[in-house]
Amino acid sequence: MAKRSAPSGFRDFLPEQYRKRQELIRRIREVYESFGYEGMDTPALENLSVFQGKGGGENEKLMFHVLKRGADLQRALEKGGNELSDTALRFDLTVPLARFYATHRSELPTIFKRYQMGPVWRAERPQYGRFREFVQCDVDVLGSSSMAVEADVLSATTTALARLGFTGLTVRLNSRPLLHMLGDSFGTTQSAQFFTVLDKLDKITVEEAKIELQQCGCAEGKVQELLEYRLAVSKFAPAALLEDLSRKLDERAKPFVEQLKEILALTPPLPSGQLVFDPFLARGMDYYTGPIFEVAAEGVPFSLAGGGRFDGLVDKIAGTKPGPQGGVPACGFSIGFERVFTLMEERGMFAAEQRGADVLLVSSGQPESDPSAPMRLADELRKAGLKVDVFPGVAKPVQHFAYAEQKCIPFAIRLGHQPETFIVRTLSTREDVQKSKADLIAYLLERRT
Amino acid sequence: MAKRSAPSGFRDFLPEQYRKRQELIRRIREVYESFGYEGMDTPALENLSVFQGKGGGENEKLMFHVLKRGADLQRALEKGGNELSDTALRFDLTVPLARFYATHRSELPTIFKRYQMGPVWRAERPQYGRFREFVQCDVDVLGSSSMAVEADVLSATTTALARLGFTGLTVRLNSRPLLHMLGDSFGTTQSAQFFTVLDKLDKITVEEAKIELQQCGCAEGKVQELLEYRLAVSKFAPAALLEDLSRKLDERAKPFVEQLKEILALTPPLPSGQLVFDPFLARGMDYYTGPIFEVAAEGVPFSLAGGGRFDGLVDKIAGTKPGPQGGVPACGFSIGFERVFTLMEERGMFAAEQRGADVLLVSSGQPESDPSAPMRLADELRKAGLKVDVFPGVAKPVQHFAYAEQKCIPFAIRLGHQPETFIVRTLSTREDVQKSKADLIAYLLERRT
Repeated sequence: MAKRSAPSGFRDFLPEQYRKRQELIRRIREVYESFGYEGMDTPALENLSVFQGKGGGENEKLMFHVLKRGADLQRALEKGGNELSDTALRFDLTVPLARFYATHRSELPTIFKRYQMGPVWRAERPQYGRFREFVQCDVDVLGSSSMAVEADVLSATTTALARLGFTGLTVRLNSRPLLHMLGDSFGTTQSAQFFTVLDKLDKITVEEAKIELQQCGCAEGKVQELLEYRLAVSKFAPAALLEDLSRKLDERAKPFVEQLKEILALTPPLPSGQLVFDPFLARGMDYYTGPIFEVAAEGVPFSLAGGGRFDGLVDKIAGTKPGPQGGVPACGFSIGFERVFTLMEERGMFAAEQRGADVLLVSSGQPESDPSAPMRLADELRKAGLKVDVFPGVAKPVQHFAYAEQKCIPFAIRLGHQPETFIVRTLSTREDVQKSKADLIAYLLERRT
Repeated sequence: MAKRSAPSGFRDFLPEQYRKRQELIRRIREVYESFGYEGMDTPALENLSVFQGKGGGENEKLMFHVLKRGADLQRALEKGGNELSDTALRFDLTVPLARFYATHRSELPTIFKRYQMGPVWRAERPQYGRFREFVQCDVDVLGSSSMAVEADVLSATTTALARLGFTGLTVRLNSRPLLHMLGDSFGTTQSAQFFTVLDKLDKITVEEAKIELQQCGCAEGKVQELLEYRLAVSKFAPAALLEDLSRKLDERAKPFVEQLKEILALTPPLPSGQLVFDPFLARGMDYYTGPIFEVAAEGVPFSLAGGGRFDGLVDKIAGTKPGPQGGVPACGFSIGFERVFTLMEERGMFAAEQRGADVLLVSSGQPESDPSAPMRLADELRKAGLKVDVFPGVAKPVQHFAYAEQKCIPFAIRLGHQPETFIVRTLSTREDVQKSKADLIAYLLERRT
């Protein structure tokens, strides 16, 4: 017997959930398109060489590999099974974007503003709230080094979140190069590990933090200093904090401080929120090269979206040398689709109409003179703009009504024994009225809401 | 260096194509929802045992297997590499539907009308018009044996095709059990092979047909008789042909002839087309158990959609024994999304607006007193319902205009040197006008079309 359920960590979507997910996709898309971002898509699979060593960090280890086939597989097995696969399912939408841009650059606008929404796959350990197939929702701009790009993706993403109904948004802004320098100033030698510790600093005890920071190379005194500075920064306004950091670090920090100042100046007031500078914001991916950012909403203990600048990733994939101006500039922002979906479901933030149709048509139970009468009537009602479900075959009224309730259909029409008369039942009140065909459509349209 | 393109047989979608594909999905969805079909989805991957031996025919051999990971993979390699995989990418949307229904039956309406649109994967030999990742678009009804189901999926699908702009639709209708009996009456012993020959009868010579039919077990005289009967049937009206076939076959054919008569009676006149009976229609899948059908449009040398009844597939997956009434009844219709898309593209049948935005905003090139002015203005214009792209950073006018043309943006607005005045260029005519902020929005909305 076949296993009856989806593979572990994978989900089915029943109609109610499916409708809500489609609503979320539609609402985010509308905002991104209103900002001039264009939709595009890449395949589920990419050549392995595209994914390997592109800064995907932990996610690269979680790739699902697709098995070679036929003679190719046979050869791989004979060689000891080291090259069983040369493609993998995408683990994010950023690395495939870089490959897409490398492939199609000449067909794209000089500055390419795109959005992409689609599934990605990671072999996460199945656990609550973690899925092996989940939707990502990214906006990116390729081809411009201007900090106006950062301001644009920030505005678009916070506008989308505000439009979905989230309030009290806080965007935290930092810069990867500045974070490196800040780490250096505290004596860290292991920057990847340092970023990981920063990421979980709020979830561990001070004692644990001290031990972990020392493992990154910070001397004991420096650890204390770092933790105190971290507490102090939350009291500064963004501009003052940037000045302070600029004094703290050396000359090399100046251009990156300027970048953040520019973002702060270019960004108009956020809808329902604030933009702050957080010199300790780290972000997970290795491919970030400039400003990085994250958005949280009031009352939500995790970020709803994150992103940053990743200049040079395209060059890495295209195998091109960055020119004198540097590599292909790129910057993006990704909304945590599944988190946002779960929150909106829990909080009842969906507007989705849940009815499977406006009207259910059922036959009279008598052999009709014209057996196609129910479907002909359905056709007329649909032309008037109604969604009409025809109950197939003959059944008892109780079965019709149960079916209409299961699908949240508000009205059922029974074809009467006289031709051209119809009995309309309002399911919620169980009230029946008889209507002539002439009155039927007006009656339904009026009550549909 | 990484390979720069998508894997062989896989496609990227650039914005223009993406918009059209979204339009096609939206237009089909609207029709299916107006018939009371509800959207749902299943994962890209299923457990291998779900796919194996479920009548997927050739497609089962074209599955992409997903490699086991870590210790599981190690164990499989030690055992000689026979069980390297326990999941595969879905090769159609029918077998996963049966699994979905087996999993969720108790949560679904008594009769489940669903649509699903999404990618499937098959390791086809890459060639013109064949892709390894392509979208399928299915409607199905589970839980009813009534022939009204056949009439419903037929009406919904032809309505969708007609609404997309296809004319002269012909639905050919047949019955798998009748086709078996017809084959028997001509002495065939290899029915799977017989169906394959029927499927290609129009593409091979009479001599080739004779040889292949003999290989199915038809004696020489019977082959001649079969080919003559096939020519004759196209001259019959559906009802007369059914009577004739009924006389030709024995008693066992009666209920299946009745089924087809019922479908013909229940189905209202098709939008832009006709419903005919074709006793030689075969269809590829092994899982069909009752009526089968296919739709073609005038001037198109291949079918646009196909389907049929597949009672019992759910039971096979659930491992349940069909009750006295038989297994879980099921019937579906699948639109050939990629074929339809290609035809519509070639024939200019898309309505899609191709502009990437309504307006491009560019800064004056002078340091603005308020650097956030362009994005603030963009925000105001968006609130008025316009799609607004802000050109990031400063560039020469020629670069702005080139960018606007690449994205088919009809208007560019330059922030003037005086605050609150704007120069609006109509890109098609290169005409510039100066507008105050008060006039700007009305001017654009009026001209947007």
